[in-house]
Amino acid sequence: MGKDEVLVLGGAGYIGSHTCVELIGAEYKPVIVDNTINSSPVCVSRLQQLTGENIAFYQFDVRDQVKLREVFSQHDIKAVIHFAGLKSVPESVQFPLKYYSVNIGATITLLEVMKEFKVYNLVFSSSSTVYGKPQFLPMTEDHPTGQCTSPYGRTKYFIEEILKDLCVSDPEWNIISLRYFNPVGAHQSGIIGEVPLGIPNNLLPYIAQVCNGKREYLTIYGDDYKTPDGTGIRDYLHVVDLAVGHVLALKKMQGEHGCRAYNLGSGTGFSVKEIIQAFEKASGKKLPCKIAGRRAGDVAASYADSTIAQNELGWKATKNLKEICEDYWNFQSKNPQGYS
Amino acid sequence: MGKDEVLVLGGAGYIGSHTCVELIGAEYKPVIVDNTINSSPVCVSRLQQLTGENIAFYQFDVRDQVKLREVFSQHDIKAVIHFAGLKSVPESVQFPLKYYSVNIGATITLLEVMKEFKVYNLVFSSSSTVYGKPQFLPMTEDHPTGQCTSPYGRTKYFIEEILKDLCVSDPEWNIISLRYFNPVGAHQSGIIGEVPLGIPNNLLPYIAQVCNGKREYLTIYGDDYKTPDGTGIRDYLHVVDLAVGHVLALKKMQGEHGCRAYNLGSGTGFSVKEIIQAFEKASGKKLPCKIAGRRAGDVAASYADSTIAQNELGWKATKNLKEICEDYWNFQSKNPQGYS
Repeated sequence: MGKDEVLVLGGAGYIGSHTCVELIGAEYKPVIVDNTINSSPVCVSRLQQLTGENIAFYQFDVRDQVKLREVFSQHDIKAVIHFAGLKSVPESVQFPLKYYSVNIGATITLLEVMKEFKVYNLVFSSSSTVYGKPQFLPMTEDHPTGQCTSPYGRTKYFIEEILKDLCVSDPEWNIISLRYFNPVGAHQSGIIGEVPLGIPNNLLPYIAQVCNGKREYLTIYGDDYKTPDGTGIRDYLHVVDLAVGHVLALKKMQGEHGCRAYNLGSGTGFSVKEIIQAFEKASGKKLPCKIAGRRAGDVAASYADSTIAQNELGWKATKNLKEICEDYWNFQSKNPQGYS
Repeated sequence: MGKDEVLVLGGAGYIGSHTCVELIGAEYKPVIVDNTINSSPVCVSRLQQLTGENIAFYQFDVRDQVKLREVFSQHDIKAVIHFAGLKSVPESVQFPLKYYSVNIGATITLLEVMKEFKVYNLVFSSSSTVYGKPQFLPMTEDHPTGQCTSPYGRTKYFIEEILKDLCVSDPEWNIISLRYFNPVGAHQSGIIGEVPLGIPNNLLPYIAQVCNGKREYLTIYGDDYKTPDGTGIRDYLHVVDLAVGHVLALKKMQGEHGCRAYNLGSGTGFSVKEIIQAFEKASGKKLPCKIAGRRAGDVAASYADSTIAQNELGWKATKNLKEICEDYWNFQSKNPQGYS
């Protein structure tokens, strides 16, 4: 019997590519669709180099229903993992229509095609941003959702609601939304990793570019938060741990129905200053920093309670901050120009 | 100087057609786009008969971006009134994907085309369903939104949020969401009115069909609510009053920017039994009724505070329950087969 084919939308992206590696390791056969507007076809070659597998790869926008139907016709897709979407918070504030069009539009197109081809298993790439400003910590899945602070966050929240309504309307569906906290790190091989386009919005890519000499210094936004060292605390998890979570979600689906959401986070919060120290140690480089005022919408602290993912998926973040920083730096130092 | 052209999406529908009459009366020139899946081209002929005006009419789905662009190319559109969408609560529970695809998809397509043609004035057909279950009465625009009880309601809420984000991103936009309570009645002429397809979901269309002999009896869902006569209380407003609200919203737009939402309701709640009595009087017919249990999701009472619409738009519901029932029955008795 052949391996189960899993359609990975956005499979050439940061989390998507790491998930493909874990899928292959777990005897699944990933089929990638990616328009590569925020990734690169080189990533797929790297994946083939890393895994020794020939991976089916289609380069188009998921909103192209005709092409998406072709992929479903050509493969015996058992499940879909849906990473395809835009993900920059500040860009979403500037161009909300683009974000709603791409993220919501792609999802609706996907769901219509899945329904047509009777593929009812879906893992959706959600985010802790659906919670908005934390009302309590650590955040459980019971934390209220919807008070998002950006259009990006709202696209994730809206999609989660659409998925819930879909499962209520038709018990055939089996959908898991994974609410990521802050994915960082890279595959240990240094062959695949994060390749942000333009100025990075997140801490680790920015740090790496300072270490690489691409940026002069790191700006710390706010050192007067009510946290032990005054800087913001976030829940960082290694992208390989996150990737494993998707494989466990697929396995959870066998014979189950309905809609569920799981937090994927380490459960531990680290401050900006702690991350800087750990990265300096991992890279052996000194990071020049400047303190600036708080950014609008930022909160003092955010971290996950992932107990339910542990109990129901058997998932737990296994990699510590040292490994996160070492792996991240390993890829960045080997690939200072990303995949180009 | 010619009259200002206003694009009316869903202009062959119940509220859309009545709004076209008021637009013409206020010296605007409506341009109708309607796919007529829940309306009829006959309605447009009736509009022309009623107003003596030749109205441009295009029959296609608003999600057809190519055709929508053609309309914007052929007309000098100054503003858009967007009624196009599916509106059945129970159908939305059964087919949520269809509702998200049509309602959200049409709106995103519209906004992209408006942006391309630099048309920034939009009146959006929202609903009091964005409030979900009332937390206080009468409901003001400050009432929390988003805890909607159906996919239909969520499409309205999501669109309102998309519109807000759009206005934040670009100050050129000038958008008014009108949150309707329960539109009823018909044009006094009896030439246009409400023509529901299939079994009506709302009270007045159902009552009319019982009066017309199409249905045997009226089911009253719950007579044990905490209301004076035990039946549910809603805020009914005459569709012509509602139509006038759209014209006033257009006028409000001159020189303004940003995103606003207004309740359009009478401010008065009537119970199911009061409506039945008023309709029996208007029609001169006795309405056979049966009492059944409460429907899931129904609330005891809901009615609007429309003070802000009065202060900012100069709008107020002017027609009383007697006129509502008489006008509704006038159209229904003259057109027992609707527009066919």
